[in-house]
Amino acid sequence: MSPIAHRLSIPVYLRGLGVLSSYLDKAEAFAASRGVDAKTLVDARLAPDMLNLAGQIQRASDTSKNAIARLTGGAAPRFEDNETSIAELRERIAKTRAFLQSVDEPAFDGSETREIALKTGKLDVTFTGLDFLLQFALPNFFFHVATAHAILRQQGVPVGKTDYLGPFA
Amino acid sequence: MSPIAHRLSIPVYLRGLGVLSSYLDKAEAFAASRGVDAKTLVDARLAPDMLNLAGQIQRASDTSKNAIARLTGGAAPRFEDNETSIAELRERIAKTRAFLQSVDEPAFDGSETREIALKTGKLDVTFTGLDFLLQFALPNFFFHVATAHAILRQQGVPVGKTDYLGPFA
Repeated sequence: MSPIAHRLSIPVYLRGLGVLSSYLDKAEAFAASRGVDAKTLVDARLAPDMLNLAGQIQRASDTSKNAIARLTGGAAPRFEDNETSIAELRERIAKTRAFLQSVDEPAFDGSETREIALKTGKLDVTFTGLDFLLQFALPNFFFHVATAHAILRQQGVPVGKTDYLGPFA
Repeated sequence: MSPIAHRLSIPVYLRGLGVLSSYLDKAEAFAASRGVDAKTLVDARLAPDMLNLAGQIQRASDTSKNAIARLTGGAAPRFEDNETSIAELRERIAKTRAFLQSVDEPAFDGSETREIALKTGKLDVTFTGLDFLLQFALPNFFFHVATAHAILRQQGVPVGKTDYLGPFA
C-alpha cells in the first residue's frame, strides 16, 4: 500500500485543485451568461481585508505544494502570485498539479514520522509529518477551497456542495 | 498505534469542533462589545440560499458524528437542529464532542477498508472507509468550519486563520 502520508496528500490535493478548476469554469460561464467581466469574480472577496478569489487559489496552490515539499524533504516550485485572470489562475492550478504529480510514492517513505518545524509570523510549532497533515496542511487547504466556494456563491455563481466535493467514480 | 481511520477522524473532528466553540466565544464577545444582538450573528449567512451560522454548526456536528457511526458500524445520536442561540449551539457542540469521545479506538478496527455506501439526494457512491474520510467526510467537515469562519468574518467578528487552525501545544 502507498505510504499513508502520500494517500492523505497527493490525491486529496489533486482532487481539491480539480474542484478549483471546475469553479473557474463555472465562474467563466456565469460571467459570459450575465455579460459580467470575469475579472469582477477574480477580484471578489468576502471582507475588505480577506484575500480575493485569486488569492484563495494562490494559497491553495502554495499550501499543497509546500506541504509536499516539507513531507518529502524536497523542493517545491515558486510562483509569483501575479495571476489576475481566470486563464492565469487555471495555469497556476495546472502547474501546481503537475508538480504534485511529479512526486512519486517512495519520496514519502518515513514522512509520517518526519519532524516538520513550521515557523511563520504567527506560528512556531514542530509536528510529526502525520500531525502536520491533520492539524495544519489539510485544514488549511480546505479552508481556501471552501472560501473560494463561498466567494463565488456570494457572487451568484451556481456552485453547490456536490461541486465542492468533486466527482465520484 | 491507533487505527489510522481513528487518527484521521476523532481528533480532527474534536479539534474542529473546538474551533467552532472558540468562534462562538468570539461572536458573543463581539456582539456584547458592539451592542449587537448575538442572534444577528447566529442568523447570518453568505447568500440567501445558504445555511446560516447555526446551520453550518449543525452540519459540522452531523457530518462528524455520522461519519464516525458509518466508520465504526455504530449509531450516532440524533439532534433536532433547533438551536437558535449561541448557548444552544455551544450545547450542540458539547453533545457532539461527548459522543465522539465515547467511541473507543478498537471500534475502528477494520474501518479503513469497511465498505461505506452513501446515498443522498445527489450522491450515490460506495467507498472504502479511508476513501470515505478523504473524499467526503473530512472535506465536508472543513467546508462547514470554514464557512462558519467566513460568515463571522464578513460580519466583522475578528477571527483569523490562526483561530481556524486552532491552538498548537
